[in-house]
Amino acid sequence: MENSRIERDSFGAIEVSGDHLWGAQTQRSLKQFDISTETMPAEFIQALALVKKACLLVNMELGLLPQEMYEPLLLAVDEVLSGELNDEFPLSIWQTGSGTQTNMNMNEVLANRAIQLMGGELGKDHFLHPNDDVNLGQSSNDVIPTAMHVAGLSKLKKELLPTLEALIEALEVKDAQFSGIIKVGRTHLQDAVPLTLGQEFSGYVAQLKLAHKAIALSMPQLYELAIGGTAVGTGINTHPQFGERVSKEIQRLTDIPFVSAPNKFAALSGHEPIVFVHGALKTLAVALMKISSDIRWMSSGPRSGLGEITIPQNEPGSSIMPGKVNPTQCEALSMICYQVMGNDVTIGLAASSGNFELNVFKPLILHNFLQSIRILGDGMKSFELYCVRGIEANVANIEEFMTRSLMLVTALSPHIGYDRSAMIAKSAYQQNLSLREAAIASGHLTELEFDTWVVPRNLI
Amino acid sequence: MENSRIERDSFGAIEVSGDHLWGAQTQRSLKQFDISTETMPAEFIQALALVKKACLLVNMELGLLPQEMYEPLLLAVDEVLSGELNDEFPLSIWQTGSGTQTNMNMNEVLANRAIQLMGGELGKDHFLHPNDDVNLGQSSNDVIPTAMHVAGLSKLKKELLPTLEALIEALEVKDAQFSGIIKVGRTHLQDAVPLTLGQEFSGYVAQLKLAHKAIALSMPQLYELAIGGTAVGTGINTHPQFGERVSKEIQRLTDIPFVSAPNKFAALSGHEPIVFVHGALKTLAVALMKISSDIRWMSSGPRSGLGEITIPQNEPGSSIMPGKVNPTQCEALSMICYQVMGNDVTIGLAASSGNFELNVFKPLILHNFLQSIRILGDGMKSFELYCVRGIEANVANIEEFMTRSLMLVTALSPHIGYDRSAMIAKSAYQQNLSLREAAIASGHLTELEFDTWVVPRNLI
Amino acid sequence: MENSRIERDSFGAIEVSGDHLWGAQTQRSLKQFDISTETMPAEFIQALALVKKACLLVNMELGLLPQEMYEPLLLAVDEVLSGELNDEFPLSIWQTGSGTQTNMNMNEVLANRAIQLMGGELGKDHFLHPNDDVNLGQSSNDVIPTAMHVAGLSKLKKELLPTLEALIEALEVKDAQFSGIIKVGRTHLQDAVPLTLGQEFSGYVAQLKLAHKAIALSMPQLYELAIGGTAVGTGINTHPQFGERVSKEIQRLTDIPFVSAPNKFAALSGHEPIVFVHGALKTLAVALMKISSDIRWMSSGPRSGLGEITIPQNEPGSSIMPGKVNPTQCEALSMICYQVMGNDVTIGLAASSGNFELNVFKPLILHNFLQSIRILGDGMKSFELYCVRGIEANVANIEEFMTRSLMLVTALSPHIGYDRSAMIAKSAYQQNLSLREAAIASGHLTELEFDTWVVPRNLI
Amino acid sequence: MENSRIERDSFGAIEVSGDHLWGAQTQRSLKQFDISTETMPAEFIQALALVKKACLLVNMELGLLPQEMYEPLLLAVDEVLSGELNDEFPLSIWQTGSGTQTNMNMNEVLANRAIQLMGGELGKDHFLHPNDDVNLGQSSNDVIPTAMHVAGLSKLKKELLPTLEALIEALEVKDAQFSGIIKVGRTHLQDAVPLTLGQEFSGYVAQLKLAHKAIALSMPQLYELAIGGTAVGTGINTHPQFGERVSKEIQRLTDIPFVSAPNKFAALSGHEPIVFVHGALKTLAVALMKISSDIRWMSSGPRSGLGEITIPQNEPGSSIMPGKVNPTQCEALSMICYQVMGNDVTIGLAASSGNFELNVFKPLILHNFLQSIRILGDGMKSFELYCVRGIEANVANIEEFMTRSLMLVTALSPHIGYDRSAMIAKSAYQQNLSLREAAIASGHLTELEFDTWVVPRNLI
Repeated sequence: MENSRIERDSFGAIEVSGDHLWGAQTQRSLKQFDISTETMPAEFIQALALVKKACLLVNMELGLLPQEMYEPLLLAVDEVLSGELNDEFPLSIWQTGSGTQTNMNMNEVLANRAIQLMGGELGKDHFLHPNDDVNLGQSSNDVIPTAMHVAGLSKLKKELLPTLEALIEALEVKDAQFSGIIKVGRTHLQDAVPLTLGQEFSGYVAQLKLAHKAIALSMPQLYELAIGGTAVGTGINTHPQFGERVSKEIQRLTDIPFVSAPNKFAALSGHEPIVFVHGALKTLAVALMKISSDIRWMSSGPRSGLGEITIPQNEPGSSIMPGKVNPTQCEALSMICYQVMGNDVTIGLAASSGNFELNVFKPLILHNFLQSIRILGDGMKSFELYCVRGIEANVANIEEFMTRSLMLVTALSPHIGYDRSAMIAKSAYQQNLSLREAAIASGHLTELEFDTWVVPRNLI
Repeated sequence: MENSRIERDSFGAIEVSGDHLWGAQTQRSLKQFDISTETMPAEFIQALALVKKACLLVNMELGLLPQEMYEPLLLAVDEVLSGELNDEFPLSIWQTGSGTQTNMNMNEVLANRAIQLMGGELGKDHFLHPNDDVNLGQSSNDVIPTAMHVAGLSKLKKELLPTLEALIEALEVKDAQFSGIIKVGRTHLQDAVPLTLGQEFSGYVAQLKLAHKAIALSMPQLYELAIGGTAVGTGINTHPQFGERVSKEIQRLTDIPFVSAPNKFAALSGHEPIVFVHGALKTLAVALMKISSDIRWMSSGPRSGLGEITIPQNEPGSSIMPGKVNPTQCEALSMICYQVMGNDVTIGLAASSGNFELNVFKPLILHNFLQSIRILGDGMKSFELYCVRGIEANVANIEEFMTRSLMLVTALSPHIGYDRSAMIAKSAYQQNLSLREAAIASGHLTELEFDTWVVPRNLI
Repeated sequence: MENSRIERDSFGAIEVSGDHLWGAQTQRSLKQFDISTETMPAEFIQALALVKKACLLVNMELGLLPQEMYEPLLLAVDEVLSGELNDEFPLSIWQTGSGTQTNMNMNEVLANRAIQLMGGELGKDHFLHPNDDVNLGQSSNDVIPTAMHVAGLSKLKKELLPTLEALIEALEVKDAQFSGIIKVGRTHLQDAVPLTLGQEFSGYVAQLKLAHKAIALSMPQLYELAIGGTAVGTGINTHPQFGERVSKEIQRLTDIPFVSAPNKFAALSGHEPIVFVHGALKTLAVALMKISSDIRWMSSGPRSGLGEITIPQNEPGSSIMPGKVNPTQCEALSMICYQVMGNDVTIGLAASSGNFELNVFKPLILHNFLQSIRILGDGMKSFELYCVRGIEANVANIEEFMTRSLMLVTALSPHIGYDRSAMIAKSAYQQNLSLREAAIASGHLTELEFDTWVVPRNLI
Repeated sequence: MENSRIERDSFGAIEVSGDHLWGAQTQRSLKQFDISTETMPAEFIQALALVKKACLLVNMELGLLPQEMYEPLLLAVDEVLSGELNDEFPLSIWQTGSGTQTNMNMNEVLANRAIQLMGGELGKDHFLHPNDDVNLGQSSNDVIPTAMHVAGLSKLKKELLPTLEALIEALEVKDAQFSGIIKVGRTHLQDAVPLTLGQEFSGYVAQLKLAHKAIALSMPQLYELAIGGTAVGTGINTHPQFGERVSKEIQRLTDIPFVSAPNKFAALSGHEPIVFVHGALKTLAVALMKISSDIRWMSSGPRSGLGEITIPQNEPGSSIMPGKVNPTQCEALSMICYQVMGNDVTIGLAASSGNFELNVFKPLILHNFLQSIRILGDGMKSFELYCVRGIEANVANIEEFMTRSLMLVTALSPHIGYDRSAMIAKSAYQQNLSLREAAIASGHLTELEFDTWVVPRNLI
């Protein structure tokens, strides 16, 4: 390696690229966990830096950190938070199950950057120790799950929920816009009694509101932070007020009501809050799957499908069929929903596999959890913007289907009974008659009765 | 078929066993869905009967049902509720996706039983019609999801939650009982700093309380009932107050605060509430998996394992190894947890597959949902009774492990730094010394310092 | 308990119902694992009895079993195999993870039945010992996984594969029958270039043949039997030829080429063969899901859907909408496919959780494995019989869709290029023209050219 | 945008960065699918380029492509294959479900690069058309699934299987090395009869060989390529020999026996081969999970666990506990196994969701499929190199456990029966005796008998 320096940890010396700030443990992990392309997500690194900042402020406040280290560490952590040092966090998801290597990556980068800011030379000057000073009063075992909650909640509150709300609003607009359009209902994919197109969209709104509520109800379990538990949950080597104070500091920095978890043993060795929240995200995925599927089908055609609505034409749909336009936003969202459903399995497995004082599937959990939030959020935004907004009713097709349907026969049932009504529907179908024709031919009712009883507008 | 009668529906005549009360549609389903051994669970049939009872009462109240039918139908439905007619509900889970065949099974049994009570002869007298009278103002599409919520919530409230609470209490007893026993902590399965055995159990309690809260938070979404939506959600062929009134009646009959769902379209075509609740049940499964796994490992041995606790010896463990005793309650519970995690996938898939006005995976959803509740409830009860209650600490083993461990070195770190402490731990391990011996040999601290700094009781 | 007797095991005495043949260990399990309604499936009990029969024959052959026990034990095991004693196997799936309690259930029933046949009195006479004699040379740890393979393969070979073959044949009939019907193709649910309805069915056939091949390729891993490994795989307490000889005997009894597993440690502690076979079953489920979904959609209507095919009308479809007919066989099959996909998760989890010399999730694995085989087999049979056989093309609808479609424009692309073709398709859509009209209006080709280039029959 | 040019497609003009080669459709996708960070994996882009090269060669051979385009296109595709143009493929996984946008990304990059090589100016000169020329005789619908098979098989054959073989070999070395070390067996985590440490490793080898065989058996289904089917499987707009010839060309370029799929309808609309292969990969994950878990537990300690083996100490294990070393390679591998199990669910869902002539979950399938191959391959390599190779037996601990165990009592069973043996084991445990002491105290056998019957070495 050209342009390198020697870094040291308790395992000895190791060569590190001179272009980077990290230290020996990061370098060991890079070499020994050279596995695939999935690295710690940026939002997690940001959350980890934010936790470090809170710890730093509290250690300062409690007088535990030497005065001269404070300023440079604060500057260093703010550089990480600004995104400037993104390239300093190269480690794989597939590393130690505690995430210790990423915690040390952060500790090493902060220590080395602070040493630089103090005028030191990397690898030579050791004004600060990544464990003794940067990680002061902390353990990977409390820092990592704390950052998992902070990263997840920040994305949920600041991105996913607002995006979901915007999607709900866009669908409410359609509900109102389509409230006067009566269409054939479909159950079992078969023609059924009518409803309005607006009512269909009101169903989507209601499904998403249930999912929104599910997410909102589950999120508070993430407010509880592991910090202060250190190595096994007892808080060894940290100040007794550390957990409380850092939680308050994180609350201040994020404007989210974080608190110190009342039981640190559970907070290190279990991840029930994430499982529960992800179950709510899966609930959202389930709702979105149904909605995007309905929209795909209603817009099918343009000539040989249902064609009850049109969606925006955003791009050529085919490399071989000229003029083809496809429901691609629905498809992207559907793929996202299935990914979330698979991630839900992975998270459940991982969370169920803790042993004694620690769950060592933390990088796996955070990878899947944050991916689900990211793809759902971005996917809904794209879907709202490039699909839902532009949905229009194809009234001609809707009316044609409506007038053909036989299921208005249901309106006769209270008057002439189920069995006679069934016979009328069957004879209409078999003889290719309209319902009215078959009804009157049956002799069970008069034309006037039919016209009085079967009024689509009264049946919705 | 000896001893048979002819029943009729809109598809014509069919032979039915004279030993049974059901009618033509049940018989068709029996023949055409002769698939495997999984039938509609008893708790669902009970809930369906309860819904029918509420509908009957409301139809009566609204003056919609001929007076003479009321009494016999009420008697008939009470017979179903008593369990006497359990053998009249033989249909498979693998039937129509709306559950219509089971709704008709119920309608037919109630109609026929009422006809009997009115002195009629089955197959001959038709004082009552299963669709026009028993199903009056209802559709399978609202009745079935209503019964799903009623069945699920009844089991959750009356069985699962109380059992979970009893298990939490039993673990709290252990937490208190073991609060003075200091043991080696384990992270990554490797020796770590100490905690008390009571603290470990407090972690289990905390995990289960999170799961309990998750279930309790999610359950209210099940309060909302589909009833009143009839065929597609518009409430065609039913009284406008039907949904509200039946919901209130069900509330009265169950003492659970059911309400009429504000949007019926979502209630028929989506099952977000069940997905969300089952996510909470999975959260419970995840917690129980970790707990039962820890108990299995802590009780491993008796001579060549960890052996930190003993569990009750309930039965011979092996058909070939005499005297073997195994953690069988933990194993049964672990199998249950994995089944619940698999069921969670099935439910998510099923719930995401609605189309337009109906989700036609209802029998699949209710089968998996009610199975999860049943096995979790029964499994926790058995686990509490035959395992948790009888757990005892094996203090001799715990102390032996405790004194051997090297991780008390962590207590030196704030005094002499991480790197020197690491060297002491390593030399103790390599030279097979006690931590005290290695620490003093290192020259970094005195005997007095060691004895002052390293006091397990102060580290928990 | 009236009419009871006292049975004994190494844990002491216990009261057992006089109506049943089982002994002390079965009784303990009944009491201590009183969990839910899922019991050991009949096909597993049968396979276990068959394994016991083979063991008995080999022990006899090797001269290890006292002569006088042989005859009565053989009679007893044949009674179990005849199904007469089905009620003697009441144990739950949720029991010890090795299935030992069901192995002992079998050992006790066989011992007691043999004692009866020898003229003894149950609970008093102990001519035979369930462990020493019936379980001679065996351990639950090798007997249970052996019976899992025997049960699974028997069902696969004798039921599932022949049923799958019948379904493939039925679809091939349709492929041939529909080979002349040209219809609009659909990609992304949007109109695409044409193909024949027969070609669509040929795709289903091809998918199912891939799945058939997958199952057939994976099954041989199940031929390898654990028997002979006894307690941990070393074969302690059994004759060195026991595994080989019993495997041969099972081969003879079943006509399936079973062999003794070459490595018994893997055979007791892993279940890779079942995971692999179930992956192939999931492949079948995936194919069936697509097929049943296509058929549901193609038969949608009858008036307001695609309506390209009709399926048999087997039963009334709705409790409220008279005359409604639904694709219920497709729905039942779809539910089955999703159950299999959930079971696949459960089996993977269970199989991955072995420790050291044993996997203790065996009852869970066999429950899910055998259920998948049962529901897929029965579901396909029902689907073939009550749906596929009766599918007919709705030629009028197919032709109407075909003539409307714009995607025949693709045939112009090689002549006038993608971009001009796209413009023609767009203008046809926007101006509501036929493709021919728009093409000629574009000036890029003549009427003759259009009629020469765009011939659906040449494009398939 | 500084330094930009205007590109056009059938939707009109759009501004594209002058630093990149892609065209209008790529640019639209970038804007309209601005979703998360998961992009098309490099191995897929390489495979797609290889497919394009084969198509180019065949189109040349068949005389379908204008001569002057051939050379520059070949140069362009070779540049992509060299990796030089990696930055030209920025599209998200979450795009159109057919992958058309990535096919067009490739077509546009190849067209533009060829235009450059022909001396043209991008955006101005259009010597080549991305659809008409680069995509000649192809459709995304056949090109994308073809590239999925090529990418998957290349990675499987050239990376995953050799790595798996190396891991098997490394474990076989341990099997041999540990063949003389007798240790206590464990079933249900409880002490059982003995075996050798080598036998345990032989079990791992056997499990992995089963998984290897599963993968090898399933892979041939991937040999069948969709190419030649074009838009819906009929081969519209391509030469009748195109599929056969391109498949042969791909076979030549990859040295893998690819063939043209016999049924193109299934090849476009189903993904059974990938589901089956991924089931085999899950089988591998299941085996690796068990193996890595056993190794974690056997190396637990160093002082307060089982400590039967030691694994390499590669890096500091804790940020707070000095000297701690953890089984991190096992943990990374375990996380990988769970990810694969989650991916298996996603792939099954996606593959089951085709409609009519196309499955539009292709990017999702390829993302999860290739990720599983990548992480399993890299993870096994790391595990073999940094863990398995360095495993050593801790003979002292193994012997201590061995001598303490009571389960050698099993050897008495054939001589004195199960019940007496059980009593001996129980009394040894309760009175804290050795097995020998308790056996002789029981009076059921002599010292000599004990020493003759109970010889661990004879029991394995």
